[in-house]
Amino acid sequence: MAVYTEVSDEACAAFLARYDIGTLVAFRGIAEGVENSNYALRTTTGDFILTLYERRVDPADLPWFLGLMEHLAAAGLPCPLPVRARDGANLNPLAGRVAAITTFLPGVWPRRVQVAHCGPLGAALARLHLAGADFGASRANALGPESWHDLLQKSRSGADTVSPGLGDELTAALKTILHAWPSGLPRGQIHADLFPDNVFFLDGEISGLIDFYFAATDLYAYDVAVCLNAWCFERDGSFNVTKSRALLRGYAGHRALSAPEAHALPVLAAGAALRFALTRLYDWLHTPAGALVTRKDPMDYVRRLRFHAAAAGPAAYGL
Amino acid sequence: MAVYTEVSDEACAAFLARYDIGTLVAFRGIAEGVENSNYALRTTTGDFILTLYERRVDPADLPWFLGLMEHLAAAGLPCPLPVRARDGANLNPLAGRVAAITTFLPGVWPRRVQVAHCGPLGAALARLHLAGADFGASRANALGPESWHDLLQKSRSGADTVSPGLGDELTAALKTILHAWPSGLPRGQIHADLFPDNVFFLDGEISGLIDFYFAATDLYAYDVAVCLNAWCFERDGSFNVTKSRALLRGYAGHRALSAPEAHALPVLAAGAALRFALTRLYDWLHTPAGALVTRKDPMDYVRRLRFHAAAAGPAAYGL
Repeated sequence: MAVYTEVSDEACAAFLARYDIGTLVAFRGIAEGVENSNYALRTTTGDFILTLYERRVDPADLPWFLGLMEHLAAAGLPCPLPVRARDGANLNPLAGRVAAITTFLPGVWPRRVQVAHCGPLGAALARLHLAGADFGASRANALGPESWHDLLQKSRSGADTVSPGLGDELTAALKTILHAWPSGLPRGQIHADLFPDNVFFLDGEISGLIDFYFAATDLYAYDVAVCLNAWCFERDGSFNVTKSRALLRGYAGHRALSAPEAHALPVLAAGAALRFALTRLYDWLHTPAGALVTRKDPMDYVRRLRFHAAAAGPAAYGL
Repeated sequence: MAVYTEVSDEACAAFLARYDIGTLVAFRGIAEGVENSNYALRTTTGDFILTLYERRVDPADLPWFLGLMEHLAAAGLPCPLPVRARDGANLNPLAGRVAAITTFLPGVWPRRVQVAHCGPLGAALARLHLAGADFGASRANALGPESWHDLLQKSRSGADTVSPGLGDELTAALKTILHAWPSGLPRGQIHADLFPDNVFFLDGEISGLIDFYFAATDLYAYDVAVCLNAWCFERDGSFNVTKSRALLRGYAGHRALSAPEAHALPVLAAGAALRFALTRLYDWLHTPAGALVTRKDPMDYVRRLRFHAAAAGPAAYGL
């Protein structure tokens, strides 16, 4: 749950004075989001989001993230557009943090994913991949396959307290996944965290894609695999192939998956499930009691991992 | 921290269909507030706040709270105006809770209280008391002096774990306060919780008074005493008599405190400090580890209580 950093009235007014967007009318903390502090900001000229970057975001990465958002917004994607201060800077200090103002996007993220959401989601993901292709700078995926070994080691000793045998299971899965990890697939800018709470819908269409702070340069099909994990499992853990098929068709409407990409879907999806299982496991074991963060059960992604490990091929996803 | 109850898209749309305020455009959880779930709601006709009532609010009290808000708003106070559904109801079921839509109020609550805030605050409090005088219905103050004995008993055994000797100190203070509690002072509708985060300012003037869910029929001067506690102490625990004087002058500009009210200020302020010390102590001892609520240190109010207990008379507050 967000709003870790309190912003004083004076600091907020002084920060806003750097920008040419009018004066403060309202300023409310937003409950959604766990990585950064977000405020809904209303000025005399309109609505904006003020984000203060917290712990997990490396300040050195911020220009890349904001540059990508600006690039994608210019290409017509419904991404938050970073607002530049009078001096051209889109990142400025505030309350001991680095902060940015971005445009407000209307819409509501789906609390319960329906099949009807999955087609537009797939289409938006493909459009994002296409629009990012001419964004020149690259950023290594800090939570990509190269990071998973170290991430697992940090939680290895505590894993069995979450579920007996979990440490061995994840160790074996990691080995299998890395062994089968594809090389040579098309790569470019990926969102890498396009969960339902990062996608706004309005009247059945996507009105907002937000939270680019895990974006990186990596395999397009891995981004598809992240979405299969995030959008196509039911609350009871079952995989909904109708949703998956809708997502993949929506994607294919804008960018066709190559045969090698389709073939790699099971291992990419297993890798994506492992990545979220590992970060959730880490947070589960390392979040202090009483912290203002909802810990998410890592087992939700361990079960997804088991599904993907058993998938015979791309047909499991409706391809 | 707010948003305890998640509202599904379908439930939100169905709820909104009861009202004549357009269709959903945006819907974001608000981080502020600890008692209820609050969402910033934007429709095609404007901005609203959606509140789902949680644990501490007795549903039987809600019509009184909303009636008071409607009454005060009609009298020109900048209070949220409950929006009525097509059938006239201002309370409707949503996601297993009772919920209400109220108008959005602009402004920002002061993160750091300045002297310049205190005059307008006092004036607004007096206006609230005057405007509430012809609101016919009454509501007993569930957290008034009659409740403090039971409240203390619920935390008595754990009090010394917070600070050695605290249990005896609070027991003695309660006895002294109840013995000296005034009778016959003017009474009417009071807010009873007018802390800085419940007061919005815009361009130096008060633009919003919110969160009437502790409002009750009780002594006007007790409401003043709550505000002295909430607005006039510095973070280091010192009392700022300049703020207090500004608050009391602002109040007196609309409603004069009678001599008996002024005389009673020290005991009323001690009682108000005790009330917040007791509820914070209860929450401190009874909030489960990991709950998504910021526990507030009860000792902040124990120190205020000590200040008021030592106050020689109304002159201590600048009267």
